[in-house]
Amino acid sequence: AQASFHSSGLTTTMALKFSEDRFGGITINVDAMSAEAFRDALGPSLEKWANADKRGIWLRIPIEASHLIPVAVDCGFDFHHAKPGYVMLTAWLPRGPSSLPAYPHHQVGVGGLVLDGSGNVLCIQERAGVTAGMKDFWKLPGGLVDGGEDLCDAVVREVLEETGVRTVFECIASIRETHAGPFGCTDLYAICVLRLDETAYGPETDTQRPDPVPQEKEIAATEWRALTGFLASPYYAKGLYGSLLKTAADVALRRHRGEQVGVERTRMKGLTRKQESMYYVGGEPVIRKARL
Amino acid sequence: AQASFHSSGLTTTMALKFSEDRFGGITINVDAMSAEAFRDALGPSLEKWANADKRGIWLRIPIEASHLIPVAVDCGFDFHHAKPGYVMLTAWLPRGPSSLPAYPHHQVGVGGLVLDGSGNVLCIQERAGVTAGMKDFWKLPGGLVDGGEDLCDAVVREVLEETGVRTVFECIASIRETHAGPFGCTDLYAICVLRLDETAYGPETDTQRPDPVPQEKEIAATEWRALTGFLASPYYAKGLYGSLLKTAADVALRRHRGEQVGVERTRMKGLTRKQESMYYVGGEPVIRKARL
Repeated sequence: AQASFHSSGLTTTMALKFSEDRFGGITINVDAMSAEAFRDALGPSLEKWANADKRGIWLRIPIEASHLIPVAVDCGFDFHHAKPGYVMLTAWLPRGPSSLPAYPHHQVGVGGLVLDGSGNVLCIQERAGVTAGMKDFWKLPGGLVDGGEDLCDAVVREVLEETGVRTVFECIASIRETHAGPFGCTDLYAICVLRLDETAYGPETDTQRPDPVPQEKEIAATEWRALTGFLASPYYAKGLYGSLLKTAADVALRRHRGEQVGVERTRMKGLTRKQESMYYVGGEPVIRKARL
Repeated sequence: AQASFHSSGLTTTMALKFSEDRFGGITINVDAMSAEAFRDALGPSLEKWANADKRGIWLRIPIEASHLIPVAVDCGFDFHHAKPGYVMLTAWLPRGPSSLPAYPHHQVGVGGLVLDGSGNVLCIQERAGVTAGMKDFWKLPGGLVDGGEDLCDAVVREVLEETGVRTVFECIASIRETHAGPFGCTDLYAICVLRLDETAYGPETDTQRPDPVPQEKEIAATEWRALTGFLASPYYAKGLYGSLLKTAADVALRRHRGEQVGVERTRMKGLTRKQESMYYVGGEPVIRKARL
């Protein structure tokens, strides 16, 4: 949309491209222009929108136009979020606190618990990071979920990257939630039970397990280690991490005995008609008729 | 840290406050200064750090110093993230792709499934939002997890805010994972089984259930509705949302019959010696000795 209107007796051309949403909001996509032209357009536009009872103003500035950011800040905008290539600023026109949604603030990490046929667990030692300096500290392979990636796929990818071992997702067994994540965010860490990929290694036996190979940059060592010894590590003797791991191991062994325990995953069509992931407890998802 | 050094035969004072990390990174906290002084300090500093094999440079610019952002962009920085009050930019000095961690990109929402003693479910209709225009669309109360909030607390808070009903968290029953979240982020939506708070309403009966009161701004209506009718809604006849809800209702009813199903939550000390949340399946967390 573009518009011309009179302000303070002068004709001003609003050279801003914007769209309106149903929440009374305006989103501006800035083109390259001089700081002066931007100031001349933005100030009167904000005045007009305030008079029209508009509420939240979203202003997306691409990195090529970063010289416009100080102008926006002068006009009352604050930062909302940024990603490589752009920064998003917002202004809230009514009095009182903004009701614009905050940018997402959760990080999701995954660890993979893989057992061989003899009850050994696939472990790694980190080359860098918090645990690299800790003596005899063995942990599960894993890492952060990438953008646009399902967590059940992330854990299989991380185990493959760190150890070369091919696995299949079985279930989520335990999750840690802490608010001491990076950048003041919340960190969710899900331990997932995985099984060795039978299409790569054949049916489960204790002799056909693959030899893990550490990723050169990040992983100092990777081994199959006896589960009981791994869980008896002084690092896991008490506190949340030991309990997370022991609970996940318990779930893996119960599943091995045929119990329907753990948070499994299926895929179904969501509201946008795209396939989305559904994680469920209780052995199976209830699809059509409720078992009530 | 501050330093002086010779560059191109001129003495340049590095007026930048910075700290080093063990990953070969540098974090700069910018003070208010002129764009010219910042350019004179930043360019030679980057050259020096590149020669010293430094890798990731983090540059935090408070909103009061937003006139320095175009200088940083000129020097090769890109946006990493921003929050109200500051923007963080990064530069990666080695050749090749950056290995700096991305900003968290998950949003977590929660829905509360509350049954009364007669098998009715607490429902709402939204006043605004996607579902407001849909005829006879009843949904569970719920909303987004706030920064620094445990998801099990968020669902109890949202149900209270939207309906005035006091509840206690029992378990997570089903989770939807979609990559069609806001700002290109991933959205996790967890349906939690809650019970009526017995300290507020006494032991569970079908006569003592509280009358829900809709929150004025966001909620058009709130009612106890028969669970079977709610789940038989055409909106839930097929697809992921109906299955999410039916699975959660099944879990609630199985728990009512005494089954240990669902993802429960406890709190324990994590690595930082602070209490953190642990979510677990299988009826109880394994704390000290593994049941192996």
